[in-house]
Amino acid sequence: MTILESIRGPRDLKALSEEQLAELAAEIREFLIHAVARTGGHLGPNLGVVELSIALHRVFESPVDRILWDTGHQSYVHKMLTGRQDFSKLRGKGGLSGYPSREESEHDVIENSHASTALGWADGLAKARQVLGERGHVVAVIGDGALTGGMAWEALNNIAAAKDRPLIIVVNDNERSYAPTIGGLANHLATLRTTDSYEKVLAWGKDVLLRTPVVGHTVYESLHGAKKGFKDAFAPQGMFEDLGLKYVGPIDGHDLGAVQSALRRAKRFHGPVLVHCLTEKGRGYEPALADEADRFHSVGVMDPLTCEPLAPSNGPSWTSVFGDEIVRIGREREDVVAITAAMLDPVGLTRFAEEFPQRVWDVGIAEQHAAVSAAGLATGGLHPVVAVYATFLNRAFDQLLMDVALHKCGVTFVLDRAGVTGVDGASHNGMWDMSVLQVVPGLRIAAPRDAEQLRLQLREAVTVDDAPTVLRFPKESAGPEIPAVDRIGGLDVLRRADAADDADVLLVSVGVMAPVCLQVAELLEARGIYCTVVDPRWVKPVDPDLAPLAARHRLVAVVEDNSRAAGVGAAVALALGEAEVDVPVRRFGIPEQFLAHAKRGEVLADIGLTPVEIAGRIGSSMALKAETAAVVAARESDDV
Amino acid sequence: MTILESIRGPRDLKALSEEQLAELAAEIREFLIHAVARTGGHLGPNLGVVELSIALHRVFESPVDRILWDTGHQSYVHKMLTGRQDFSKLRGKGGLSGYPSREESEHDVIENSHASTALGWADGLAKARQVLGERGHVVAVIGDGALTGGMAWEALNNIAAAKDRPLIIVVNDNERSYAPTIGGLANHLATLRTTDSYEKVLAWGKDVLLRTPVVGHTVYESLHGAKKGFKDAFAPQGMFEDLGLKYVGPIDGHDLGAVQSALRRAKRFHGPVLVHCLTEKGRGYEPALADEADRFHSVGVMDPLTCEPLAPSNGPSWTSVFGDEIVRIGREREDVVAITAAMLDPVGLTRFAEEFPQRVWDVGIAEQHAAVSAAGLATGGLHPVVAVYATFLNRAFDQLLMDVALHKCGVTFVLDRAGVTGVDGASHNGMWDMSVLQVVPGLRIAAPRDAEQLRLQLREAVTVDDAPTVLRFPKESAGPEIPAVDRIGGLDVLRRADAADDADVLLVSVGVMAPVCLQVAELLEARGIYCTVVDPRWVKPVDPDLAPLAARHRLVAVVEDNSRAAGVGAAVALALGEAEVDVPVRRFGIPEQFLAHAKRGEVLADIGLTPVEIAGRIGSSMALKAETAAVVAARESDDV
Repeated sequence: MTILESIRGPRDLKALSEEQLAELAAEIREFLIHAVARTGGHLGPNLGVVELSIALHRVFESPVDRILWDTGHQSYVHKMLTGRQDFSKLRGKGGLSGYPSREESEHDVIENSHASTALGWADGLAKARQVLGERGHVVAVIGDGALTGGMAWEALNNIAAAKDRPLIIVVNDNERSYAPTIGGLANHLATLRTTDSYEKVLAWGKDVLLRTPVVGHTVYESLHGAKKGFKDAFAPQGMFEDLGLKYVGPIDGHDLGAVQSALRRAKRFHGPVLVHCLTEKGRGYEPALADEADRFHSVGVMDPLTCEPLAPSNGPSWTSVFGDEIVRIGREREDVVAITAAMLDPVGLTRFAEEFPQRVWDVGIAEQHAAVSAAGLATGGLHPVVAVYATFLNRAFDQLLMDVALHKCGVTFVLDRAGVTGVDGASHNGMWDMSVLQVVPGLRIAAPRDAEQLRLQLREAVTVDDAPTVLRFPKESAGPEIPAVDRIGGLDVLRRADAADDADVLLVSVGVMAPVCLQVAELLEARGIYCTVVDPRWVKPVDPDLAPLAARHRLVAVVEDNSRAAGVGAAVALALGEAEVDVPVRRFGIPEQFLAHAKRGEVLADIGLTPVEIAGRIGSSMALKAETAAVVAARESDDV
Repeated sequence: MTILESIRGPRDLKALSEEQLAELAAEIREFLIHAVARTGGHLGPNLGVVELSIALHRVFESPVDRILWDTGHQSYVHKMLTGRQDFSKLRGKGGLSGYPSREESEHDVIENSHASTALGWADGLAKARQVLGERGHVVAVIGDGALTGGMAWEALNNIAAAKDRPLIIVVNDNERSYAPTIGGLANHLATLRTTDSYEKVLAWGKDVLLRTPVVGHTVYESLHGAKKGFKDAFAPQGMFEDLGLKYVGPIDGHDLGAVQSALRRAKRFHGPVLVHCLTEKGRGYEPALADEADRFHSVGVMDPLTCEPLAPSNGPSWTSVFGDEIVRIGREREDVVAITAAMLDPVGLTRFAEEFPQRVWDVGIAEQHAAVSAAGLATGGLHPVVAVYATFLNRAFDQLLMDVALHKCGVTFVLDRAGVTGVDGASHNGMWDMSVLQVVPGLRIAAPRDAEQLRLQLREAVTVDDAPTVLRFPKESAGPEIPAVDRIGGLDVLRRADAADDADVLLVSVGVMAPVCLQVAELLEARGIYCTVVDPRWVKPVDPDLAPLAARHRLVAVVEDNSRAAGVGAAVALALGEAEVDVPVRRFGIPEQFLAHAKRGEVLADIGLTPVEIAGRIGSSMALKAETAAVVAARESDDV
């Protein structure tokens, strides 16, 4: 039995010697590399927090003490130490979540994958403890990258205000999130890493200055009178102390003894304290350390020795199609610039950045700033392309509405990972964008159905200079081209009903639901129900040609990879009502629920977003309508 | 002619002597007090920036240099200096906007009233200048209160990163926004205000330390080697310098000479610089200075001498009804706590705070933190009530979804100023909430129609402990009680059609649209169209009894004080479709546009949200349907 296998819960850690702990750390790294290579998952971040996770569970008593993981993909080691060592179905249906999960364990608190939240949670939990007079510590672990997010600042400002409310912030400083951390904060953390050299100065300085009179009292007193402690004044420990947080550090995050000792010191302090912990992302795994782009932040199924991917590739990804086209556009138009929120490579901007380094900005994990600075860039005469995961756009909703749209700024938002993404669980799905964006005046939304449409629509989007545009596409590979058989106004007709002029059902296909809709049409036609399938391409605003077309059908069905609430289906229904076209509308999309982690196909099957389910429901609806019509006709005929 | 009258644009300022400038400042204060007393508007903030506004336009050349006002209600003086001195219809239809407006002037940039945006705009504008090789300075004026917002932090981090990109940040530090600024930042700014006393120490210290050897080299060199300048190390100028921003200050913001001199110094600096300017909100107007709550932040029409309000009051405001009830609830339940984002008094929490000071938190202008810390509080065993203006909730959308709702936290959001608010213009209307919140799983939304319902529904909301709830109500006074004549499931029936069992139209009234709907019903009944009027009270989720009721009508009309896109109307249409009830739905609400400032009634008339308009459109729709039905019947009868 390995030491790791003997750990059933945090309590089992307490009995281990320091030597055994070091052995445990090695076992955990070995386990991580092989387990994550088998399923795919977040590797680099977890290799970096092995010692930190062990130390946290040695020093604190979870779950009475609450350990909060910011951006929970760094919680694998924590899982292993809290009774969860079956990683065989990690992120798969029925397996362990890739993030903390309250359903899995009482040791987990924050389930979502959006960054910079842990300090706010900690502030709330600490306040609750204070109000209720409960004991127990609150410890939040946050990366230096996540500190660039505005939420972290808002929380720091609040936490620092209460000198009598204990709360421990562990800054896991590996100088990066996905990519190296940017900005003034990163520079400041770099300075803090060198503060050791001040210690000697201080010892000497205090002694001298205490005895030196200036303007009637000693320098020390003078500084003291200005309400700054001596150490604050002469050792610039920086902004955290300036704000009012006790600062402990910097600590070598891979020195188990040092980390435990720092955490014990923090635990004894009766107020807010920040422990600055230096770690190395990918620690102990050479291939990860050699990968400068993201240190194996997240890997697919791979061979742990060669690091060769073991899952087949299905052709170019949507991301790469975008990445190639934006480079071509960049060559043609000098005014096109790009913004990423700490995810240059994942959103496909690496090549653009290589070719146009002066025209791309990584703003940190700061979607709000991505949007508002884009408004400034557009007002200044450029056309910014903000590339971001669909789920993270929610962070910038107010800025998109109030800064970009209200000021009629030509900004293109490119939403990668839109729709059901699957394995990363509830908070990574990009299933809200086409709903919440419906209210934004002037905004246009494109949902390309294939790679060719993505290229075309991206080019259309960057020509719009008086309003925001949004392009959304999913994770995974762009499938084969789906040709249009006709065009009506702005609508691509993907299939015409064979049988009659007036078909039974108008299927409105949104983006990548095109293949599903074409299959639905086939299934229905086999049952004698004839369908027209159209792809509106731009789903907001609703194309004016849709209502007259709908009027020639008996039912309209809108199929979208987005929340059914308030999405494209709702917009189509509104447009038809406006035009007094009262053909019934059925909406197929994601129900109002959070989706558990599983593969995209499994999730779609679970929520009934498959050809068979959709065709079945439309078929029943049509049968019911036919029945009702027959009853009405019979009644009318009686009347006559 | 006064000096003020002689100022047609910023250029006219340049010719004035320092004495004339002082006289101008006095004239502006006199003008402000009388003009704003006549129309209502933001008074305190503008009295505080008289000298600062003059100095900015003396030192910089707007519009080549861009002057950006954060939370634009502090731009009145700027307006007066840029050719806009007719304040007679301030915030009224056709009059000057209460915020900057690009339509009004080329000197205006940011139009919206949401705080903490200016630094992000400035970063974007400065980047655009750099890319395009254009000359001109970018100057952002931001309050100390607005610095507590996460957007400001994200921007500071980005601005500080580029040493070669000039950008001037003026911190207008009056120690408050609406209320005194909170948190670690406020404490830090207080420390900075006293840094003058360090100057003497520095002069002495540098001299001594340069000559003092320590560990082989001088202390000065030792510090220098650690990549911190001497001054940085020995004068803790604080977090701004830590981040990498040149710091100038503190400056007396009412000393015209000092402010101009500081701005000139900043203008010469070829990188990001922060000018710390101390001002007094309400400066020069005794009644404002005496008002500790908010220093006359925003006033109604009043007598400028006695400060007595001159507009009649129409009974208790919605805010006060909430404020009274939450105190009563607080007395009954010790677990109910409250959160405000820097607006304790405007959202009605003053009395709660007086009675339960340990159970209320002002988190700063930080809606994100309000929501995420509420999730922490709820997880910690309390029931937080987050009281916020409806328009500002957009800032916390991601946190409401991913932190509160995903984690099934019982948090009640109370949205004041929901719907059309009017005079504060496009960005103050609370017209998006019932749309964007539709996607949030498990969330319940209440729209009370009168004060009694607000009390009841607030009590219902705070009992929900496994999901977020939202209550939304408008500005102004709560009108008289509107009794229900019947109840069907969760639906209050406000009026039954007199004529028949099966009425023609089902009017679904949302919240305060009840009186409008009752009038619509009367108007239609006069035309022989019979209406049922129901108030669902809880508009999300849609009450299951609505569909069967709708099935007994020929048309459903949903009337809401919210965006028509994706709102309650869309949710009702979805629910009816689900139930295969294909009664046509018409949605009446706010069209997809930004609304110019005017009184609420004027705006509602402009967008057709009046009884006459709604009745007219429903009438036409019914006539059209009757016509179509006749044609169909005739055709069917031919067939027979």
